[in-house]
Amino acid sequence: MTTDSIIHPTTAVIIPAAGNGSRFGSDTPKQFLALRGKPIVFHVIERFLAEHHVARVIVCVAPEWRQFVEDAATSGQWDRVTVTEGGSTRQESVHRGVLVASGLERINIVAIHDAVRPFFRLSTLRAAIHGAEHVGAALPGIPLTDTIHRTQDRMIVETPDRENWVAAQTPQCFRLSLLREVLDRARNEGITGTDEAGLAARFGHLVRVIEGDPMNLKITRPEDLAFASYIFEKWGAMVE
Amino acid sequence: MTTDSIIHPTTAVIIPAAGNGSRFGSDTPKQFLALRGKPIVFHVIERFLAEHHVARVIVCVAPEWRQFVEDAATSGQWDRVTVTEGGSTRQESVHRGVLVASGLERINIVAIHDAVRPFFRLSTLRAAIHGAEHVGAALPGIPLTDTIHRTQDRMIVETPDRENWVAAQTPQCFRLSLLREVLDRARNEGITGTDEAGLAARFGHLVRVIEGDPMNLKITRPEDLAFASYIFEKWGAMVE
Repeated sequence: MTTDSIIHPTTAVIIPAAGNGSRFGSDTPKQFLALRGKPIVFHVIERFLAEHHVARVIVCVAPEWRQFVEDAATSGQWDRVTVTEGGSTRQESVHRGVLVASGLERINIVAIHDAVRPFFRLSTLRAAIHGAEHVGAALPGIPLTDTIHRTQDRMIVETPDRENWVAAQTPQCFRLSLLREVLDRARNEGITGTDEAGLAARFGHLVRVIEGDPMNLKITRPEDLAFASYIFEKWGAMVE
Repeated sequence: MTTDSIIHPTTAVIIPAAGNGSRFGSDTPKQFLALRGKPIVFHVIERFLAEHHVARVIVCVAPEWRQFVEDAATSGQWDRVTVTEGGSTRQESVHRGVLVASGLERINIVAIHDAVRPFFRLSTLRAAIHGAEHVGAALPGIPLTDTIHRTQDRMIVETPDRENWVAAQTPQCFRLSLLREVLDRARNEGITGTDEAGLAARFGHLVRVIEGDPMNLKITRPEDLAFASYIFEKWGAMVE
């Protein structure tokens, strides 16, 4: 299977980018804010296009952003990108992307990636693909650097041993058939997960955690964007 | 009590700084690495000295670093700093600091602060002191930006709803009598907590979570130190 995937790309990437949320005090959704002169999600798309495992990048956007992304695909000569309309939630957007992936030939693995994580390593993608090929689902995770507490009414009710916990990153990879089953079931049962890996585990599937990377920053706040610019300036080569 | 605390400083700060850990590939413990030409922990100490609630700053260090900190106290004219020897664990260092605080007059509240968090706001300290005065213990917490998973043998076993979780920051504030009781009991029962707030909650005390600040960065990795330098350059005033 691994040999085959080198000869024929069998991975479809889904980037849910339909959210309009921003903690930036800006009307522009954060995935479209500029990082070194280019929308963050475009950095993400172009990084995936550099990887030979990737047969297709499916970008799920809100209707009002569709033309913008399609124009970029044309001018950037993105040869393996499909732009499609996302849903009202991240999970719904991923579900729509999975339906698009199901209509493509030879797709075995789906990689889901946050639109605001431009610094993932291609080696992480490859490791997650391998994990999904072997156990069905895999994602990068990093150790928690902070103590975490569960709270209720603003009071601490539990402090778990953080050694057994990870913070989830993306790309999260799945066998396509498994992910379809998980998302169909979640929709039927009215369940919304915070990520697809958690949903898959909840439904009894094995989900392997592979080694993530602290540099695989999720840009959710203004200071993250400032730091991301800084990384680009100083350490651009480091995250290749 | 609040009025009194304005007239007579009643808070002692404990900074456990005896660790020799470093993820920096350096022999220097991270709290002594230079941030804009000055050891990180010295920034922390000087920020506390700027606050009138603070009667005393107790710095717990490894024996080999004691003279270095005492020299800085002299040359920096730190008028309210006590340097003492820490223990082999963070909790043990805090315990020793609490014994020092217990020997001081008028101390009602103890604030424990990470040696590598130079960007806390004084308003956060005040809010945590207030919280401790009212319920006994309080700490700043911020929402989790990442999904977290509990793992076993590198597989996901649980994905909690992160809405009910916070990442702990410092300063964590306690009534002195409460903290002594908690630490004595933890020692007697052989329990090591990841933070003192978690220990207090575990022993049945109310621990309030107040609003933390994403900028209150914990410097634990090289990229954190680079970002901290960046904050200092660009946004020094923002975190006052």
